[in-house]
Amino acid sequence: MIPKTHRRVVLARRPAEEVAETDFRIEEAPVPAPGPREVLVRVIYLSLDPYMRGRMRDAASYAPPVGIGDVMTGGTVGEVVQSNHPGFRVGDIVEDRLGWQEYALGPGPALRWVDPSLAPISTANGVLGMPGMTAYFGLYEVGQPRAGETVVVSAASGAVGQIVGQLAKMAGCRAVGIAGGPRKCAFVRDTLGFDDCIDYKAQGDLAAAVKAACPGGVDVYFDNVGGVVSDAVFLNLNVWARVALCGSISQYNTTEPGPRLLGAFVGKRVTMRGFIVWDFSGKYGPALRQMGEWVRTGRITYKEDIVEGIENAPRAFIGLLRGDNFGKLQVKLGPDPSAR
Amino acid sequence: MIPKTHRRVVLARRPAEEVAETDFRIEEAPVPAPGPREVLVRVIYLSLDPYMRGRMRDAASYAPPVGIGDVMTGGTVGEVVQSNHPGFRVGDIVEDRLGWQEYALGPGPALRWVDPSLAPISTANGVLGMPGMTAYFGLYEVGQPRAGETVVVSAASGAVGQIVGQLAKMAGCRAVGIAGGPRKCAFVRDTLGFDDCIDYKAQGDLAAAVKAACPGGVDVYFDNVGGVVSDAVFLNLNVWARVALCGSISQYNTTEPGPRLLGAFVGKRVTMRGFIVWDFSGKYGPALRQMGEWVRTGRITYKEDIVEGIENAPRAFIGLLRGDNFGKLQVKLGPDPSAR
Repeated sequence: MIPKTHRRVVLARRPAEEVAETDFRIEEAPVPAPGPREVLVRVIYLSLDPYMRGRMRDAASYAPPVGIGDVMTGGTVGEVVQSNHPGFRVGDIVEDRLGWQEYALGPGPALRWVDPSLAPISTANGVLGMPGMTAYFGLYEVGQPRAGETVVVSAASGAVGQIVGQLAKMAGCRAVGIAGGPRKCAFVRDTLGFDDCIDYKAQGDLAAAVKAACPGGVDVYFDNVGGVVSDAVFLNLNVWARVALCGSISQYNTTEPGPRLLGAFVGKRVTMRGFIVWDFSGKYGPALRQMGEWVRTGRITYKEDIVEGIENAPRAFIGLLRGDNFGKLQVKLGPDPSAR
Repeated sequence: MIPKTHRRVVLARRPAEEVAETDFRIEEAPVPAPGPREVLVRVIYLSLDPYMRGRMRDAASYAPPVGIGDVMTGGTVGEVVQSNHPGFRVGDIVEDRLGWQEYALGPGPALRWVDPSLAPISTANGVLGMPGMTAYFGLYEVGQPRAGETVVVSAASGAVGQIVGQLAKMAGCRAVGIAGGPRKCAFVRDTLGFDDCIDYKAQGDLAAAVKAACPGGVDVYFDNVGGVVSDAVFLNLNVWARVALCGSISQYNTTEPGPRLLGAFVGKRVTMRGFIVWDFSGKYGPALRQMGEWVRTGRITYKEDIVEGIENAPRAFIGLLRGDNFGKLQVKLGPDPSAR
């Protein structure tokens, strides 16, 4: 039964530095009725991702900011529960960008049908969705790894990082992760099969730890974090190294200065390139097919961190920015009909 | 007449931060006699270039450091005054890497014959030599400018920068220089024909000055300096901008921290690439022919800053690191037989 009202999370105010729960507001709103050629989607999984911090800022970026009072933007996996569109049936599972809310009208701006027989549908927000594509294209197209090279990825147990290292192994590289705490590092090494993982929260000289884990230096650095972790990797880059700039989560809440390390990029001929997963959207098809096959056959594993209830989304997102999550963070907003 | 002794400049000690004259020592040494298949070269022009600061450091780099007591490395244009090599005649003009000394045995590690009928032979150390090639390949191959784009170059009146802006104009771009002081800026605008030039020594907000000079943003940044000047440009980069990292002279003597600006490179998809001119050595031939034609026909102009006497080389080099030179800095060690 479709309820009369549902809950949604809107941006209450723009955070100055650290995001607080009071920057969000949970609202009760009427469930909208689909118009002609519209569908009503019940959101099952809401993806929480670092890029959302940028949308809370009132600044020009590659995507417009969320307005004050507007529903927070976000990737979602949901179920069509009402359809006035001939292409959709009730029960269809769709991935779309429908935001932090329990119900939404579709089709939205990023619609994709999800086949629930291939893998758990939550993976459409993860390894078989935006984070997986980010890892795939960021590593293979931006990082350009060659067999025998050393690939380092920061936030190695996160949604993107966990895939990057496995893809690096597949390409014949040495894969070294950087993650926070012994539990995450053990997972990265033992479950994901990275060659090594550095605990950036451990005592000691981080640059020396990178050097110890990468005795031949670093050829590809897939950067999700920026800041002091990246500084330590930059000091260990090899000649002709490539840096794929995917994100800089350590800098989203703060603005502390750092050492100037770009000078060494000249002699080392480092290529550093920022990218957005959308840049490769024309190539998602074959990449998703390939990744789906690897997931199905167990060559790529993944870890999700699923929080229940939309009321917990703000707190979970704040934890994400601090690295509290362990694996791809999602909020489960309601029952998953495909779950076994 | 070939003298019995000559002067040379050796590295006396490694500077900690600022280079001092006492880091060098001027020695009197016997003029060597060429052995079989060797020539004796009288150095006429010694090129002074920022990269030499790196050679004074005892650190792994793209080239080995100069040893304590060894002759400082450096590009030279000279005249063959004695030849035991069938391929060389007395009077031949050669460009080579023979170091800070009045006489040297050749052929050295970077020999190139210079045709004195094409242009003043000093240009083999400048616009038709390493700095010219650096500008040519750094802009055209690394910067990848397209007609209509805006190219910014720092150290715009220097050996490389002055050529970069003119090459950018040739490619149909808006060329904006950054230089120190009104005299250099006027030269960059009025004589070299850049569209604008920003005085980084002037009062005020440098990022705002870049924005004013580049109302459409910056598409290509050719970086010779690093530090706060580059920070100001980074804040004005367009989506899909390219940064050609050529040098970071502002950081050679100091190590002050700076703001972390790489985070914005993600959404802007900035590509930043360090390069060394040698990387393109296989393509020097056609590039030098093209540049020679442009110089001959006056489409490219150049400015040299020539200091007389090897005893003044250390002081001139120290001035170069401070930006005191105005144009391509060279030291004239003796008479130029090709000068009109």
